[in-house]
Amino acid sequence: MIDGWLGAVHATLVGLGVLAFAISGAQLAAEKRMDVVGMAFLAVVTATGGGMLRDLLVGRTPVVLVDVWMVGVAIAGAAIVFALHRWIAHLARPVLVFDAIGLGIFCVEGTIVAIDAGIGPVGAAIVGMLTGVGGGILRDVLGNDIPTVMRRESRLYLLPALAGSALTALLVELGVASTGVLVGIGAAVIAFRLLAERFRWRVPALSTTVLPVVRGDGTPAP
Amino acid sequence: MIDGWLGAVHATLVGLGVLAFAISGAQLAAEKRMDVVGMAFLAVVTATGGGMLRDLLVGRTPVVLVDVWMVGVAIAGAAIVFALHRWIAHLARPVLVFDAIGLGIFCVEGTIVAIDAGIGPVGAAIVGMLTGVGGGILRDVLGNDIPTVMRRESRLYLLPALAGSALTALLVELGVASTGVLVGIGAAVIAFRLLAERFRWRVPALSTTVLPVVRGDGTPAP
Amino acid sequence: MIDGWLGAVHATLVGLGVLAFAISGAQLAAEKRMDVVGMAFLAVVTATGGGMLRDLLVGRTPVVLVDVWMVGVAIAGAAIVFALHRWIAHLARPVLVFDAIGLGIFCVEGTIVAIDAGIGPVGAAIVGMLTGVGGGILRDVLGNDIPTVMRRESRLYLLPALAGSALTALLVELGVASTGVLVGIGAAVIAFRLLAERFRWRVPALSTTVLPVVRGDGTPAP
Repeated sequence: MIDGWLGAVHATLVGLGVLAFAISGAQLAAEKRMDVVGMAFLAVVTATGGGMLRDLLVGRTPVVLVDVWMVGVAIAGAAIVFALHRWIAHLARPVLVFDAIGLGIFCVEGTIVAIDAGIGPVGAAIVGMLTGVGGGILRDVLGNDIPTVMRRESRLYLLPALAGSALTALLVELGVASTGVLVGIGAAVIAFRLLAERFRWRVPALSTTVLPVVRGDGTPAP
Repeated sequence: MIDGWLGAVHATLVGLGVLAFAISGAQLAAEKRMDVVGMAFLAVVTATGGGMLRDLLVGRTPVVLVDVWMVGVAIAGAAIVFALHRWIAHLARPVLVFDAIGLGIFCVEGTIVAIDAGIGPVGAAIVGMLTGVGGGILRDVLGNDIPTVMRRESRLYLLPALAGSALTALLVELGVASTGVLVGIGAAVIAFRLLAERFRWRVPALSTTVLPVVRGDGTPAP
Repeated sequence: MIDGWLGAVHATLVGLGVLAFAISGAQLAAEKRMDVVGMAFLAVVTATGGGMLRDLLVGRTPVVLVDVWMVGVAIAGAAIVFALHRWIAHLARPVLVFDAIGLGIFCVEGTIVAIDAGIGPVGAAIVGMLTGVGGGILRDVLGNDIPTVMRRESRLYLLPALAGSALTALLVELGVASTGVLVGIGAAVIAFRLLAERFRWRVPALSTTVLPVVRGDGTPAP
């Protein structure tokens, strides 16, 4: 799609993002007492889940794995966690940066894929956001956790993904989305993420969680 | 699709159903200590999840959000939970009624969508049921709960949804499904739900849950 | 698809596999204190989930339930668990064998379906594996458990499924996948599974799970 050295830079950045996602999957698997097969499986799901969710939603079928190389990178990520688990704390900072890079690229490119498939701007922004965050949500569901990105202890993650996707959809709609502009949006998402971590930005949450149960499907109070 | 004042009534009822689903999502999010972004996200997933699951299963792609207004209603539902959480117990009864309205409409209309897509009557009944209950199941999976509608403490929910969908599929198959008949089925599902809550109807469950583990994939006893 | 007595043998074996999957679903539902509707629902999801996941991924739509008879078999499985729960320990051995039969057939046939849909060999092997293990993973997600097949206490399950699917994809690619060869692969998967249970084969796991948290989406340490 993209040629020359720019294409090489793009592929490298995507690869680093996929690697970061995979490491987070393998690491959750280890925390949850899975075996190495579970680690590799969860690494692959985390790394490829956002793209597969995107393809399911836009109806790009067969869905599976146009980018087979991602499976290799994901398994390498699982191997890194297995081999280096004693020194894994040293990986925290690069993983954070690589993950932000992946998020920035995936939410911009996911939005473009959705628009190319004929989805309107609001839907395309949602697909773009899910391309970026879907792998991590699948990871946490399979690991039997509440998705990290929804928890009040987490820093901003869904919000920069949605902002980047919505801006992409808007500028494409306005016909001003050159490659340079799109790269700028991706870079802004990455910067936003890293600043959110650096300065511990959070969004508000209800101060109490002791709510009476108000659900329409008949759940009694716990 | 439906014109005139009948269309307005239909849209209002669907909107109330979507609102009830969204409130249940935002409320579970608050219980589970998510932040406001998590509340809005879970509200949107609960409100739109059944319809997205339906579109995935019937192959109506791109799947995402033909009805963009639902996202707005869902976010309004999350805002209501956030703003009114001190008085939320007063919402329990209207949310219950609105949820029943949503269930009745979604399972009848989901079945029709499935039949129009060429699915046979048994499959269409299942799609219709999932259109009604899918959002709530996704909500509970993301909130790391066993789906409410499957729990023994719950009142009848899956059963009226399946009955309404199956009856819809049957009467369409027999060629006697006029608009009036379909409205009647939806109303019966709503009435069934409300009676089940009012009189605390339940289905049986095994009296013991201390079963020896019989699973074919090698799980040892817990 | 397959005629004569060979077809009858095939259908019987598939039916036994579906029955074993359904029993595992109904049994988890009972353990998790669901009611009989939850038991039937989870039995159907477990029995049909792998095939539905396969159809979603390969874009075979409408997805739902070409094989309506599976729903009947699944509900029969739930009824067996409900009726025979006092004697269910006696079912452990046949369920284990039937489950292995289902796994062997589903991963070979799922791979073939994926290849016929134009998916490359790596993707097809993954689809085949997911056809075999997807129902059980959905079961555990809905039951709010970490998927059995990923846990370190489990014996080999994902691995024989993946090996069988990969071998199928490879031999189809090489043009040497006669019916006899495919039956042989399925039988090898079944044998592998039963030997893994008999001799308690496991794959390694990290000896410690006390890892510092290295995730890129800002999860603080638990």
